[in-house]
Amino acid sequence: MRRLRFVLEYDGSEFAGWQIQPAERSVQGVLEEALREITGESRRFSPAGRTDAGVHAVGQVAHVDCATHLEVPALGRALNAVLPRDVAVQALEIAPSDFHARHDASAKLYIYRILNRATPSPVRARFAWHLRSPLDVAAMAEAAASVVGTHDFSAFRGAPGGSDEEVSPRRTLHRLNVVALGDEVRVEAEGRSFLRHMVRNLAATLVEIGQGRRPASEMAKVLESRDRANAAPTAPAHGLCLERVRYPDRPVD
Amino acid sequence: MRRLRFVLEYDGSEFAGWQIQPAERSVQGVLEEALREITGESRRFSPAGRTDAGVHAVGQVAHVDCATHLEVPALGRALNAVLPRDVAVQALEIAPSDFHARHDASAKLYIYRILNRATPSPVRARFAWHLRSPLDVAAMAEAAASVVGTHDFSAFRGAPGGSDEEVSPRRTLHRLNVVALGDEVRVEAEGRSFLRHMVRNLAATLVEIGQGRRPASEMAKVLESRDRANAAPTAPAHGLCLERVRYPDRPVD
Repeated sequence: MRRLRFVLEYDGSEFAGWQIQPAERSVQGVLEEALREITGESRRFSPAGRTDAGVHAVGQVAHVDCATHLEVPALGRALNAVLPRDVAVQALEIAPSDFHARHDASAKLYIYRILNRATPSPVRARFAWHLRSPLDVAAMAEAAASVVGTHDFSAFRGAPGGSDEEVSPRRTLHRLNVVALGDEVRVEAEGRSFLRHMVRNLAATLVEIGQGRRPASEMAKVLESRDRANAAPTAPAHGLCLERVRYPDRPVD
Repeated sequence: MRRLRFVLEYDGSEFAGWQIQPAERSVQGVLEEALREITGESRRFSPAGRTDAGVHAVGQVAHVDCATHLEVPALGRALNAVLPRDVAVQALEIAPSDFHARHDASAKLYIYRILNRATPSPVRARFAWHLRSPLDVAAMAEAAASVVGTHDFSAFRGAPGGSDEEVSPRRTLHRLNVVALGDEVRVEAEGRSFLRHMVRNLAATLVEIGQGRRPASEMAKVLESRDRANAAPTAPAHGLCLERVRYPDRPVD
């Protein structure tokens, strides 16, 4: 048995999320089915982050144990040949047997994309939240900076679901940047781990600040309140993408 | 009656092309249906270029005559509200009554996108032709430069279809650039008008040069031969996008 380490890209539009669920199409389910088809083995993929329904990834990392004697490059190509076109293996290697995609990650970078212009974009609609009125990016950036660091992020935590319920709400945001790129506004969130819906709730609250509906100073107050009711409703899933996962002493994939 | 000038963006993936065809979903058909829904009028849209099935546009221009008294900004918003999410009005204005989207165009810019890396990209799959082996971009650029200018482009002309049959094969390529941008190779073709499949046939032949299957010097020889059999098979539609249309004495949209 060898532990394999995958880097994965997927368009989350037509998935009910990473995690296998009965009667739903999941990224994990599609990957496990492809592995079964190529190797005959039924194995469990463990990701760095369980992305929600509709959330995309270009640099998700996952590990899986597998007994196949197929060479690694051939296995990657074979999997891509049978995977549907909305999931693809970007890199595949043999990892130390104790490698753990989630526990070992030192940082995950998520980008939340907002298309900020008067008209919708058919060619970018799948990957950005469209907001017509111009956002005040400077105010958003100021607000974002005020919540970087280690805090209780209960105010930005999604309704607790199952296994998440007992997890501490304390998290460390290494970085929360708001940048304008042409007609796009991007919220870049980096941290070792995030609470459920945390990035989308942070992005949604920053948007309300960018729209002038709240002052920039309110971001820190929402955080301090630890009350989910004070943050904005969760931003839509399709604007979010898991860009990359970092591991100590390792170049970025 | 007023003549309206539209700038349009569409994801061509799920269209049988611009032009209305019985029992097929077309960009023109969807636009005319939206206009009918908003104004009650059945009017014909005339585009700068009739894009083929699967070809995208971010800057298509079209004109239409319409008697509606709706203000132009309200009409644009109303159309976007009823259009499916793969077509959107980007700009709308009242044009001179003799404005003609195709005849008046001084240049059209098409970009053919190639994703040139080992693995497929689920998030870019709809908009780029995926080619695994590294292309020699310098050889492609050299070959491209050799066919710029006014020539008989019969060698790069698609099988003649209907109204196209009697059109002269003489065209002027103002510009044909090949540029590498990250893991993408882009073929940028600018000219006043193009023959059917011309950009895709130019791109496909440049790709064979980039793959080392032909020397760069062959591009001009294929052109001179005027024989379609000497050029490469047509590149797939989904890599092609009509980026913008220029009109004399007018800023670009």
